[in-house]
Amino acid sequence: MSSPDRLHDGSITSPVGFSAGSASAGMHPDGAHDVALLLSETACSGAGVFTQNRIRAAPVVYDDALLAERPGRLRGIVMNSQIANACTGDEGGEAAAAMARAAETALGLPSRCMLVLSTGVIGTPIPIEDVSNAIRGATETMDPEGGIAAAKAIMTTDRTAKHVAVRVETPAGVVTVGGVAKGSTMIHPNMATMLGVITTDAAMDAARLSALLGQVADRTFNAITVDGDTSPNDSVIMLANGASEVSIARDAEAWKLFEAAVELVARDLALMIVRDGQGAHRLVEFTVNGAGTEAMARSIGRAIASSVLVKTGWAGGDSDWGSIFSAAGASGFAVEPDRLRLQVQVRADTGGPEGEWLLLAERGAGVQVDPLETRRIFSAPAVAFRLELGMGGGEATIWTCDLTEEYIRSNEGGHHAKGGRGARQGRH
Amino acid sequence: MSSPDRLHDGSITSPVGFSAGSASAGMHPDGAHDVALLLSETACSGAGVFTQNRIRAAPVVYDDALLAERPGRLRGIVMNSQIANACTGDEGGEAAAAMARAAETALGLPSRCMLVLSTGVIGTPIPIEDVSNAIRGATETMDPEGGIAAAKAIMTTDRTAKHVAVRVETPAGVVTVGGVAKGSTMIHPNMATMLGVITTDAAMDAARLSALLGQVADRTFNAITVDGDTSPNDSVIMLANGASEVSIARDAEAWKLFEAAVELVARDLALMIVRDGQGAHRLVEFTVNGAGTEAMARSIGRAIASSVLVKTGWAGGDSDWGSIFSAAGASGFAVEPDRLRLQVQVRADTGGPEGEWLLLAERGAGVQVDPLETRRIFSAPAVAFRLELGMGGGEATIWTCDLTEEYIRSNEGGHHAKGGRGARQGRH
Repeated sequence: MSSPDRLHDGSITSPVGFSAGSASAGMHPDGAHDVALLLSETACSGAGVFTQNRIRAAPVVYDDALLAERPGRLRGIVMNSQIANACTGDEGGEAAAAMARAAETALGLPSRCMLVLSTGVIGTPIPIEDVSNAIRGATETMDPEGGIAAAKAIMTTDRTAKHVAVRVETPAGVVTVGGVAKGSTMIHPNMATMLGVITTDAAMDAARLSALLGQVADRTFNAITVDGDTSPNDSVIMLANGASEVSIARDAEAWKLFEAAVELVARDLALMIVRDGQGAHRLVEFTVNGAGTEAMARSIGRAIASSVLVKTGWAGGDSDWGSIFSAAGASGFAVEPDRLRLQVQVRADTGGPEGEWLLLAERGAGVQVDPLETRRIFSAPAVAFRLELGMGGGEATIWTCDLTEEYIRSNEGGHHAKGGRGARQGRH
Repeated sequence: MSSPDRLHDGSITSPVGFSAGSASAGMHPDGAHDVALLLSETACSGAGVFTQNRIRAAPVVYDDALLAERPGRLRGIVMNSQIANACTGDEGGEAAAAMARAAETALGLPSRCMLVLSTGVIGTPIPIEDVSNAIRGATETMDPEGGIAAAKAIMTTDRTAKHVAVRVETPAGVVTVGGVAKGSTMIHPNMATMLGVITTDAAMDAARLSALLGQVADRTFNAITVDGDTSPNDSVIMLANGASEVSIARDAEAWKLFEAAVELVARDLALMIVRDGQGAHRLVEFTVNGAGTEAMARSIGRAIASSVLVKTGWAGGDSDWGSIFSAAGASGFAVEPDRLRLQVQVRADTGGPEGEWLLLAERGAGVQVDPLETRRIFSAPAVAFRLELGMGGGEATIWTCDLTEEYIRSNEGGHHAKGGRGARQGRH
């Protein structure tokens, strides 16, 4: 019995029975790998959480249907970066299906067992012949330690590959949970431009897996925001292949430990996405408590974490409680200004030592603060805020980042596959 | 009979019977005037439209109550910049009342006839003694051409004073409508950090005035957005003193012409605010049509015009239809991606000649576009988009601007009275 341990170089291939490979279809401007395959030796239970954007990319539509049709018969995922296959009409749906078929054929699998994930520029068709060739090439590189290569192949404007795995000893036996993700621009609650894949060798049915993933996503992937935008491609998929032969759901204690491990993997990936937010200098953990309900706390936290004015203030190392209170008031909820209380703290989880909570405002008004103290706190790479509403027992935490000039620079000219300013046009 | 003409150097004092003055209370760091008075020779009908932020600044609370209590007995407005008198507790309410009383006393007026408007930094108390002295000083400068001085005294981060007036010949007689405004950061629909004052010498009762102002504000002040934030101070107040002795409401044709004049004044002021958005290089008029309802069209337009990703794309002169479609999809409405159609055009109303509409995407997918043509369009200081949803007859227009590195620079360190980076602290 122990709390979960992070594995060195962990990823989606850390759980037993998973392998991954990657190749280049020539979509990446530098020739880097842009296609990846994840394969389980045996059939998996599968579950997905998808974008709330009304415009759903073709792979999202494909996966949603396949997970409903064969939730217990999945074998893996074919992924690509650089082209999102969103806003691509009927041809887009055909391209997603063709990618799945190409992977199934190349891997010698039955049809309708591979899921599809795409990320990149919107509105450009998938070069399906090149991608099919790359899928065939990727099958030659399948490796039980290939998860990190897959994490690299799904990067777009990401600066770092995002991967983690934990092993947890439970009364039912030892199980492993691993994951990879990509993020960067357009990261917002309710699934933003973000792909996440979580694997485990624990055994469980798809219904239970689906309930678990929904719950965990709400507290992790759906609790982050970079720029408030949401994309048509956001997806988190989880596969459980049971290769550990540990049936986790029969023992309450084992399930609890497993659940904590999945949440740890998901939160690690979500925070990697926030830290890597385009141009971000500072991770901000924002907790709202004393709300009427948890949902109200989360909505107010999201409103604050999406305020352009608040986020640019943070970029300058600002403790301006006024703009935070104002954003809370603009959230649409009946906050009581006279009850608001705001504190800030240096966070331990990305560097500097955890400090004391510093009171910035209470009873709706600012307090006298030592400028040296705020300067010290705001020079930390991670800070936490706690906003108390004084209305009830609802609490929620949102993770976000500051909004810097660098974000603007990298997005002038729109988001595009090149991860920089390649597609920029016109004057500035 | 004619369409309304803009007057040279028009403002709130262009209508008959209004005068204005200003003075310094020492709140402005450069010693510029930061207190202004608007006075009508006779009692006015008054109406107001106020912030939707749940946190309402003390002057908003004060005016809302006074307009309900004495809608036909108002004489003017006392205004200040640099300090918003928001999040200032009970003392804030007392300070707003004290400002009104100081103005009433200094002008020899009965009590409860002056409204109050404040804008500036949140959470700082009004230095009521200095402000009362400045109010007395301002009474010595009252001038029937003092409206522009008042417009200057309410500037915060504004780069230009905002004022306009139009005279309109109606079947009932000639009436004048004038206005001043201030804007800059935190400009969003539903009243953002924005003060607007409209005056007229037409005669009408307060109920009619209130209905008119609500309607006009929806199509003008509430149809603009700079950074998506809303402030506790946003207010638009309109005063009608009847000094022209033209009773506008008795004649349908006269009322129509008058209504158009008020809308012209309000739209001019609203567009001045957008053009002066912090760091903005480009005015964008965004029309959504083919929506189920006008409200749906407006909400989708606001969602697009508030997207950080879309707005930074515009800063780089980008025609990326993908991020616009994605923002429409993220608005929460059931848009049909396959029906979306997007066009762009150079706008005449701020410089360059009005051009042809250029099709960027239709049936949900991009079309081939000459890069030289998009470059030409996006080098214009004003562009218009037209997004057709293909669902119904609802249409609405939103005005906004691009989001540039300059915006970030001027807001690092938060919004504050100094209009620059004076209060910035900590590292970048």
